[in-house]
Amino acid sequence: MKHARIEYNGEVQDVTVHEQNKVLLKEGVKVAEEDVIWLPPEHGTVIALGLNYADHASELEFKAPEEPLIFIKSASTFIGHRQRTYRPANIDYMHYEAELVAVIGKQARKVSRDNALDYVRGYTLCNDYAIRDYLENYYRPNLRVKSHDTLSPIGPYVIDRDDVGDPQNLGLLTIVNGEVRQEGSTADMIFSVAFLIEYLSAFMTLQPGDMISTGTPKGLSDVQPGDEVVIEVDQVGKLTNYIVSEEQYFNQSS
Amino acid sequence: MKHARIEYNGEVQDVTVHEQNKVLLKEGVKVAEEDVIWLPPEHGTVIALGLNYADHASELEFKAPEEPLIFIKSASTFIGHRQRTYRPANIDYMHYEAELVAVIGKQARKVSRDNALDYVRGYTLCNDYAIRDYLENYYRPNLRVKSHDTLSPIGPYVIDRDDVGDPQNLGLLTIVNGEVRQEGSTADMIFSVAFLIEYLSAFMTLQPGDMISTGTPKGLSDVQPGDEVVIEVDQVGKLTNYIVSEEQYFNQSS
Repeated sequence: MKHARIEYNGEVQDVTVHEQNKVLLKEGVKVAEEDVIWLPPEHGTVIALGLNYADHASELEFKAPEEPLIFIKSASTFIGHRQRTYRPANIDYMHYEAELVAVIGKQARKVSRDNALDYVRGYTLCNDYAIRDYLENYYRPNLRVKSHDTLSPIGPYVIDRDDVGDPQNLGLLTIVNGEVRQEGSTADMIFSVAFLIEYLSAFMTLQPGDMISTGTPKGLSDVQPGDEVVIEVDQVGKLTNYIVSEEQYFNQSS
Repeated sequence: MKHARIEYNGEVQDVTVHEQNKVLLKEGVKVAEEDVIWLPPEHGTVIALGLNYADHASELEFKAPEEPLIFIKSASTFIGHRQRTYRPANIDYMHYEAELVAVIGKQARKVSRDNALDYVRGYTLCNDYAIRDYLENYYRPNLRVKSHDTLSPIGPYVIDRDDVGDPQNLGLLTIVNGEVRQEGSTADMIFSVAFLIEYLSAFMTLQPGDMISTGTPKGLSDVQPGDEVVIEVDQVGKLTNYIVSEEQYFNQSS
């Protein structure tokens, strides 16, 4: 089952999603995906991993980390499926990052990796965009890399854990304007979903609705206003969004 | 005026706070501060500064940063006035950090420093505890330094901006078991509250209830179970909390 949060005729609804992303409204009517406004399916804390695929670490000329590199994403960045992300003015390089997200289903504290997946309610996707220009800062990743408004499309929905199966054997893709730019497999994660839940829950209690965005494989490239960016994870879904300029974004939405 | 969020007889209330931290309940009754459970007075995103006092940067053998060092605090860390913070088992060094917090009052986007304080509703305090053992990680400050449960007492209340005056001329203290351990002035901040609002709002829209925790002056030292830790900022207030061991904390609260 796929669970989404959408707005339809000005009203926010929790809905289920069916074939071809048709949304079943509470009135029992099914509508097409383009007829609703998609919201992030959850609103807990998003904990995101850096350099969690060995091939991506090597692409950036880092050696694989020996312990997880983790940061908290700002809620100001969250948007839903089919929404717009702005490319800030006067930057040189902004890239997508296709990521599998594990959504916590029950409070997790000091959980062992052996039963960690029992605490996962389901999975969704995050496109964890980054502004490469601002990497240099003693605090990493600094907020100007990861916390510009709209940098985190999440969704479209949360799919139940048992509908996905093994989270460590899923293909990931990023497709920009129809062209495959990034391709990988969650089999190549350095720290698995189960390991990350054990690691995090040892010091911070994870709450239902919290999300762990598990990092991205190699294959990063720049995106520009006008681009349609689709990230896809096998068994989980496809998350689409659209790049616009900063000027377009703020002139149209304010 | 001082605005707090408390729990009394099992019910959460938004209240005002009067002389000697007496709380005016909605029934019109005043009760002593020890008779209520204090909650964090706000629940927006907390954006925290590192090394924002030149004396503290030098204490840690860093040169003063040329741009702000900023991170997002995990909501799992937030507790209220008079609550307990646990010292994790098997660590060597945990220190307090007395910080002035600016609470955003209206949506702030691309604000100039000249009128930035118009966007501040008021001020509160945060004791931004850190576990020094875990500093070494390519991502900084990593989650094990700053995101253990209970590491961020916030409060007791938000005091209206106009009751505080110039936020860049306030004394700060940390008092452990009655002994002054940390002493400084917000006059020594490297990046002022107004500058930080300009800097942040240039790329992330600040929402009402978001908080900017502005860093700490020099004078850090270890705290141990049994310690009473009070941080104090002139004109703003005093925030008290109690250090317990990890074992005490989890045995008593689960």
